[in-house]
Amino acid sequence: MTIQKSPNPFREDEYLARLEKSKKAMEEKGVDVFLVTCPSNIFYLSGYGADSAYVSQAIIIDLEDKYPKLCVRRQDTPAGYYMSFMPNDNVTGYPESFIGDPEVDGYDFMVDTYGSLQKAKRVGVEFGSVSASTLAKLQKRLPNATFVDMSEVVDWHRLVKSPAEIEIQHQAGVMTDLAFQTGLEAFAKPNMRECDVAAEISAALIRGTPEFGGTQHDPVLIPGGLQSGTSHIPWTEQKIQKGKHYNMEFGAARHRYSVGLMRTAVIEKPSDKLSDLYKYMIEGCNNALEVIKPGVTCGEIARSYADTIAKGGYEKDSRCGYPIGIDWLETTLSLRTDSQDRVSENMVIHLMLGTWIKDDFGAVISETFRVTSDGYEVFSKLPRELLIV
Amino acid sequence: MTIQKSPNPFREDEYLARLEKSKKAMEEKGVDVFLVTCPSNIFYLSGYGADSAYVSQAIIIDLEDKYPKLCVRRQDTPAGYYMSFMPNDNVTGYPESFIGDPEVDGYDFMVDTYGSLQKAKRVGVEFGSVSASTLAKLQKRLPNATFVDMSEVVDWHRLVKSPAEIEIQHQAGVMTDLAFQTGLEAFAKPNMRECDVAAEISAALIRGTPEFGGTQHDPVLIPGGLQSGTSHIPWTEQKIQKGKHYNMEFGAARHRYSVGLMRTAVIEKPSDKLSDLYKYMIEGCNNALEVIKPGVTCGEIARSYADTIAKGGYEKDSRCGYPIGIDWLETTLSLRTDSQDRVSENMVIHLMLGTWIKDDFGAVISETFRVTSDGYEVFSKLPRELLIV
Repeated sequence: MTIQKSPNPFREDEYLARLEKSKKAMEEKGVDVFLVTCPSNIFYLSGYGADSAYVSQAIIIDLEDKYPKLCVRRQDTPAGYYMSFMPNDNVTGYPESFIGDPEVDGYDFMVDTYGSLQKAKRVGVEFGSVSASTLAKLQKRLPNATFVDMSEVVDWHRLVKSPAEIEIQHQAGVMTDLAFQTGLEAFAKPNMRECDVAAEISAALIRGTPEFGGTQHDPVLIPGGLQSGTSHIPWTEQKIQKGKHYNMEFGAARHRYSVGLMRTAVIEKPSDKLSDLYKYMIEGCNNALEVIKPGVTCGEIARSYADTIAKGGYEKDSRCGYPIGIDWLETTLSLRTDSQDRVSENMVIHLMLGTWIKDDFGAVISETFRVTSDGYEVFSKLPRELLIV
Repeated sequence: MTIQKSPNPFREDEYLARLEKSKKAMEEKGVDVFLVTCPSNIFYLSGYGADSAYVSQAIIIDLEDKYPKLCVRRQDTPAGYYMSFMPNDNVTGYPESFIGDPEVDGYDFMVDTYGSLQKAKRVGVEFGSVSASTLAKLQKRLPNATFVDMSEVVDWHRLVKSPAEIEIQHQAGVMTDLAFQTGLEAFAKPNMRECDVAAEISAALIRGTPEFGGTQHDPVLIPGGLQSGTSHIPWTEQKIQKGKHYNMEFGAARHRYSVGLMRTAVIEKPSDKLSDLYKYMIEGCNNALEVIKPGVTCGEIARSYADTIAKGGYEKDSRCGYPIGIDWLETTLSLRTDSQDRVSENMVIHLMLGTWIKDDFGAVISETFRVTSDGYEVFSKLPRELLIV
């Protein structure tokens, strides 16, 4: 018996439309074969997303072929059959002799195996995600080919979401709100450590609702106390402290698509300093959202926030957001105050308004939004306020 | 007020000893400056491990300096002060103008800023972890320097664990056992979906014990039913099914150090096919462990397992393990049947005996062990048996 295909939220025609965009980009760059190694792009183009990116793996897109080929370690071929939308014949596993050997790896197998790669005059590779070693190996093994940088080509295609992707992100939004509720209840329990709160949040993100569950989420961030000026540190084992505030940043993933959300939670009573800052942050968030419609620049959105908090004498040192989807942070648009890039319908963006004022003091608020035909919609229903526990 | 240093399980002299090994390797390779970009190696050498590796970051080791320099995004400098063992003066943040710009990134800032980098004749870089784009940028920006591949140099230093690291991994082992217990209880509850079981396991891994908690763990893997032949697919939303078996692979992390553990759990009654396979797998695991002592080769350990299950007519297509620590899977030793590499005291290795027989059928057992002066010790107390729920 052979393993079945997994339940997949996307139809074959959606994958083929995604591939068509890659093929068009290949034609524009004169590329015969595109070796996609970025794990999120492999997932986007094929559905394959097993936890196997620590060894060589790629999809190989040939202009002539309807389907891409997926090449993974042989141990992972059943996962390839299960997760990829392509016929099983398009999944090839390389033998274990290519694992844990300093001389050869799966890319050698690909060069040995795929005639299209051997014959290609111009091979597309994502220079921004492939390691320097791997590119050097490919160049050595395919001396007659020219290697063309295709970094972020697929990432830009991922920026505008399809109806199916948007529906999934709506579900992730529902789960995210539930996890925030769970987190607030956890903060309120007696004698909780930060790790206890993070544990309950993680469980809520994965459990989801009776109708739909979560997939692996990004790390739960709840820096607080004297660490509220940091954005990316792990939770600690310190007890939750009355009078302190915690900057909650996390979100559920559904079929690997995330929705990000940030709010500051205060245990009992906020300081005047925090209340004052957060008042401007809420107003700034509301103002930034009101700017959004197709055609506005990322800079206009970011400046709306910056101008609002400037009225309170505050400044945000970091950008105001980035696209979100298969990756929490997608490296295409950037909501810098000086950005001239324009948003368009069905882009999904995390409006990230963490405002870290000093080394030991900051607060956070955010919304994940979709650009609609004439404005925006947010994926969370959580009130935009300082959350008092 | 400035953010304090985080509680750190390692003393400064341990970090300095780690750095000394890197400096010795630099001298052997004639390298003046070592730009370490692998996030796990940055953590090992400096203590810095915020969730910020999606933007440029590095530590810069100069042979002349006692401490390395840490360069991160300015937003992450408080996290750098908090997590790194070095004096705060050794942490530098680059401005936000280096974020989200297709032309420049944090590596440009490093080249602009660090005189040691500008003057270096030979610069060490981990070609295996740095992207091809980044290496090309460094080569262009520092045209007079020769770039020397330092891939896996630090990884090999990480292979032999210190007493402090071993103590942490013992704690991770205790938490891992608790999470397996939680997982088994979750499998036994009525109407559970795979995501519900994964949620409870994740919470247990993070919550830990009243004495110590977990840090971010690797994804929980529980493939079962017709998916028991796969090793790395995400949990699903399918209901847990009686008569099926689930391959549990997960482990807690403590201060980021993981302990891996695998067992197969059966809901109610195992099939004869599974019982037969697992009988040989248990014997194989026991036999492989009994081989372990300083000086034996990885191949001897792996062959002990292979020879044992061969008596039942079974074959394991994949290697039998790898070192485990800051990364779940460390890419130094590899327990292939043909490996001549020898183990030595205080190496910590995940003896990974997942045996996937067909696309839709396999089972798993494993132990994380430490090589002692005359044998081994395992970090889990879970019985080596098919776990009946």
